Amino acid sequence: MNDDIILLGHGSGGTMSHRLLDELILPTLSGVAVQDQDDSAVLPAPGARLAFTTDSYVVDPIFFPGGNIGDLAINGTVNDLAMAGARPLYLSVGFILEEGLELAELESILRSMRAAADKAGVRIVTGDTKVVPRGKGDKVFINTSGVGVLEHELAIGGSRARSGDRLLISGTIGDHGMAVLSSREGLEFAAPIETDSMALNGLVDELLRELGPAVHVLRDPTRGGVATTLKEIARQSAVDITLDEPALPVRPAVKSACDILGLDPLYVANEGKLLAMVAPEAAEAALALMRRHETGTDAAIIGTVGAEVPGRVFLRTAIGGRRSIEMLSGEQLPRIC
Amino acid sequence: MNDDIILLGHGSGGTMSHRLLDELILPTLSGVAVQDQDDSAVLPAPGARLAFTTDSYVVDPIFFPGGNIGDLAINGTVNDLAMAGARPLYLSVGFILEEGLELAELESILRSMRAAADKAGVRIVTGDTKVVPRGKGDKVFINTSGVGVLEHELAIGGSRARSGDRLLISGTIGDHGMAVLSSREGLEFAAPIETDSMALNGLVDELLRELGPAVHVLRDPTRGGVATTLKEIARQSAVDITLDEPALPVRPAVKSACDILGLDPLYVANEGKLLAMVAPEAAEAALALMRRHETGTDAAIIGTVGAEVPGRVFLRTAIGGRRSIEMLSGEQLPRIC
Repeated sequence: MNDDIILLGHGSGGTMSHRLLDELILPTLSGVAVQDQDDSAVLPAPGARLAFTTDSYVVDPIFFPGGNIGDLAINGTVNDLAMAGARPLYLSVGFILEEGLELAELESILRSMRAAADKAGVRIVTGDTKVVPRGKGDKVFINTSGVGVLEHELAIGGSRARSGDRLLISGTIGDHGMAVLSSREGLEFAAPIETDSMALNGLVDELLRELGPAVHVLRDPTRGGVATTLKEIARQSAVDITLDEPALPVRPAVKSACDILGLDPLYVANEGKLLAMVAPEAAEAALALMRRHETGTDAAIIGTVGAEVPGRVFLRTAIGGRRSIEMLSGEQLPRIC
Repeated sequence: MNDDIILLGHGSGGTMSHRLLDELILPTLSGVAVQDQDDSAVLPAPGARLAFTTDSYVVDPIFFPGGNIGDLAINGTVNDLAMAGARPLYLSVGFILEEGLELAELESILRSMRAAADKAGVRIVTGDTKVVPRGKGDKVFINTSGVGVLEHELAIGGSRARSGDRLLISGTIGDHGMAVLSSREGLEFAAPIETDSMALNGLVDELLRELGPAVHVLRDPTRGGVATTLKEIARQSAVDITLDEPALPVRPAVKSACDILGLDPLYVANEGKLLAMVAPEAAEAALALMRRHETGTDAAIIGTVGAEVPGRVFLRTAIGGRRSIEMLSGEQLPRIC
């Protein structure tokens, strides 16, 4: 790599993150194949396949409209397990606290974590707490790792998209990122924007039970947003993906806030949405199922998978144009999760 | 709790940490019984029992004699799994990097992690990287979580000590803490002090295979040192423990450094040592086994377990006196792991 220091962009989830991961971290650390970079590792174990995942949360501010770093850390890791097709079972929690953090704030965070875990049906079974001096951290960072079990023989993953698949999203895009950004910058919009942070394992469970092998890919578009996530899948599966812009569900308040700030909602993080690629004959059933579910009421079919230009993602605009979509570059929204 | 902010002492592993955990974190987060606070959670799973653990590493400095934060993070989590009687299988790694960290330093850390994982026979299977702005972190923090499998029916844990058990330690005490502290403070001693950071799963595997149910407790005395760890076990098992001071293996250089700095090696962190409580008839066999193993050459029998004063730990001194040992209080050695 050309740079010799870590920059904020290395944590953005976009191109700089990918380069850091592909060129330094993965080759040095493990034999994990680059095309198998799903959110959870699916592991053989006696009698069952396990999923095991980890995520650190450094969101700033730690409290934002609709949630805080605590429930975010639970939902995020639950969702990473669910996206592997696993039933989330156990979570670990590791805190790095800054000297001077108010206990009342910590308690509020802990309560949110417990409530989120209960709602998702997972147990926090082990943990660790470290404290760093004032000025060597930022209030609280949380790592959650998770273990889940795969109770079926399905193969779900970013490399399983097939030409002809339909692309669905379970709801509106950009809510979480704009909620955090608005809160951080002290921006006030006419309509308040709240995070969409929520656990999606219940929805995934129903999708897999109803549609089984017709579900090929599940992925939650967090850091880097829908655009970056689709780009990852297009590469992993060696397919192209065409997004239908008018079909993308975006709340008017989120759209206005993005317009004002010069952001594209396609690149803004979500924390309670999933992208699904399903066989074309199952698309309408998947959509109906999502819309019936409390976590998928705004679901939509937003695109199709093709085989012509492997690795590319296109946006078909309202006026009939088509433009290429790239990964998030740089640090558009640092510390959004 | 009386204090309304987080202090450094809350992360020390000593009394303040215990209060934070017992009074706030555990009651809020989970139904984990307080007497079952082992380093790993042992989890029922289809066909096998799993162990699952987590630890964040915030050691300062990140490079110190004999190791760095990377191999420390691998060995520490491997050891937490081994202390549950599990065979460590899979690790996750979560990085929180400070903007401005030199990539060369990161690479060096990653290489150490890979080497340590290979040596311990574990695979790093999933990970996450976040970046925080300059001044909101401190170079690099690492969370490692681990999953292991229990391949036997033995019950190993801090609550299993029995009156009559013999207490063994697998080698010298205080090396890691004094290596880090000397490095941080720029102290130079005649004999260099190196960390003892190493994986103990191989030693545990042999102990369990050879001695089976005679092994009651295994615990690595990290933060808070041997004294704090024994106090935890005495409480969990409702036993008393008497340490034989002359039998405690301490390197002369560590002893000198502790004397100069006014520290007691009993409270200094270790990262490559285990305490074992075994049935009395197995004590000599356990000692011989440890001494034959490359990670236990300086092993010693250092105490006995009694039933007279549950929860208490005593030190029998060289001149025949006996004094009570308490947990580490305050922040003797912050950021030692």
